Amino acid sequence: MPELRKDPIIGRWVIIATERSKRPMEFEKQEEQADFKHCPFCPGNESKTPPEILAYRANGSKPNEPGWWVRVVPNKYPALQIEGALNRTGEGMYDKMNGLGAHEVIIETPDHAKSLAQLENNHIEELLWVYRDRIVDLKKDSRFEYILIFKNHGFSAGATLLHSHSQLIATPIIPKRVNEEVAGSKKYYDYKERCVYCDIVKQEISSKVRLVSENDAHIAIAPFASRFPFETWIMPKKHSCCFEDIQKKEVTSLAAILKDILLRMDKVLVNPAYNFILHNSPCNMNNLPYYHWHIEIIPKLTKVAGFEWGTGFHINPTLPEDATKYLREAEI
Amino acid sequence: MPELRKDPIIGRWVIIATERSKRPMEFEKQEEQADFKHCPFCPGNESKTPPEILAYRANGSKPNEPGWWVRVVPNKYPALQIEGALNRTGEGMYDKMNGLGAHEVIIETPDHAKSLAQLENNHIEELLWVYRDRIVDLKKDSRFEYILIFKNHGFSAGATLLHSHSQLIATPIIPKRVNEEVAGSKKYYDYKERCVYCDIVKQEISSKVRLVSENDAHIAIAPFASRFPFETWIMPKKHSCCFEDIQKKEVTSLAAILKDILLRMDKVLVNPAYNFILHNSPCNMNNLPYYHWHIEIIPKLTKVAGFEWGTGFHINPTLPEDATKYLREAEI
Repeated sequence: MPELRKDPIIGRWVIIATERSKRPMEFEKQEEQADFKHCPFCPGNESKTPPEILAYRANGSKPNEPGWWVRVVPNKYPALQIEGALNRTGEGMYDKMNGLGAHEVIIETPDHAKSLAQLENNHIEELLWVYRDRIVDLKKDSRFEYILIFKNHGFSAGATLLHSHSQLIATPIIPKRVNEEVAGSKKYYDYKERCVYCDIVKQEISSKVRLVSENDAHIAIAPFASRFPFETWIMPKKHSCCFEDIQKKEVTSLAAILKDILLRMDKVLVNPAYNFILHNSPCNMNNLPYYHWHIEIIPKLTKVAGFEWGTGFHINPTLPEDATKYLREAEI
Repeated sequence: MPELRKDPIIGRWVIIATERSKRPMEFEKQEEQADFKHCPFCPGNESKTPPEILAYRANGSKPNEPGWWVRVVPNKYPALQIEGALNRTGEGMYDKMNGLGAHEVIIETPDHAKSLAQLENNHIEELLWVYRDRIVDLKKDSRFEYILIFKNHGFSAGATLLHSHSQLIATPIIPKRVNEEVAGSKKYYDYKERCVYCDIVKQEISSKVRLVSENDAHIAIAPFASRFPFETWIMPKKHSCCFEDIQKKEVTSLAAILKDILLRMDKVLVNPAYNFILHNSPCNMNNLPYYHWHIEIIPKLTKVAGFEWGTGFHINPTLPEDATKYLREAEI
């Protein structure tokens, strides 16, 4: 069973994923890249994954057989495990609990060779509906405090399989960064009586210098204090703390702006590896007037890592206003 | 002039280093590796760096000429600049100030080919004295809130030059992670009336399961809630919040344990890239009963990055107790 361990100084929980435990010499090995015959995410190979949790599939097609266009399965090598209880306990001065949670893989397309950016708008909409369905379903499990949806695209961003997929991790704790966002935005709200994200939306639309893209319901910006070159956030214009409350028209708008941004990055940065993370409000916090869901996209361009991890202090070599210009002027 | 910008939600300051500004196509280029003839850190090439700030050198040798064994120079491409005032100002809802600070390079040895781990014990002691001298000197400048000493070893850990060196950055703000450590350890102290780091030292010496190495004045441990495989902390056994208060005998002990750990990592992980960061108390906080300086060493073994950056949530595939065993049993 994986373990959750708490840093006794700053209170951060860490997953110690013993089930995927690595010996020293295993870190060098590059995961072998399966071709479509052996790829566990390709149609016809459904038996190579654990049984599906959800699939959007053609009428009449059977579960765990071809006919799907988006498919959700449990991660074969889960960082957290779905069965059991938390069993919070101590080890001397330290605190730990069982690594209870869900770890799912969302296979975004049956097409082995297509990237998320290359999918049709209506296909990306379907993917967003799948995100929503899984959040709604997992929120019913009272053991979970947070549901995290993210994507690693490209080996250098941490992907181990090429076939386009996202991941979902449900956790019995709220990740540190989310706690900071919730606390920080509440502090701003207590002082200003306004949502800080709504204020950002307004300022960026009016000043335009960091506005990469805009459509009906969403904007994409280079954040004022970007930690990474070409870091981009997608935010709904209308206040909403919970992604799963999204309306049908808004899904259409979100799919369009997500595709737009990924295509712009592919053009300007030549198909970069990237991570995206959906920042949503914690499970038991609904209708927050101060929190605002958003998507953070971080292309993997710079190597420096340990320094940033060690200090929480980032040096960004690209002016966000310059990144905005490059992305905005890309011909896609 | 570089800028310091504040994230309006979580309050984190970021350096926007405009002087090293990169255009999109420049991220791919690997910095070219100078051989010893062209290496700016090699003896004989002193004129290729800005004039030295400090050097430990042979009697009779002249500044900015050969004869030194440790040499400190300003970074040629500084992330922060030493001249000017902070000029805190707003930009609509956002906050920023001038990127004022110091950015120095500490050339650890005249020998182009030697790594820190390969230096003699007494040479490493000299390096530690240089760290101390620079901290003491920069603490006199009241514009600085924090002095950060760190090392990137190997390209994948962010080094751009092979010749062994450390870096120093003095900042007008306290890095986020340091603030969290100071606040977290104060909270523990307020409740327990003991230093959390002193408690860690005691528990790890007594349980031994995460004790990698121990000598007169220091221990090296795999932290209970390690974020990264083979993450290792070196801590003084005796309580001390300020590295610069270190005694002569303790410098001997610290040099020995630092070399010991780096040699063990080289053996077990086959010369890994790594970062180390000296965590010291902030400039204007002396004699803290609750904070305890330490060195964090993080070998660069895993690729996943964006997810951790985006969430503050880490998945560590190696049990700290296993890492301890591997490092402890290494024959060096």
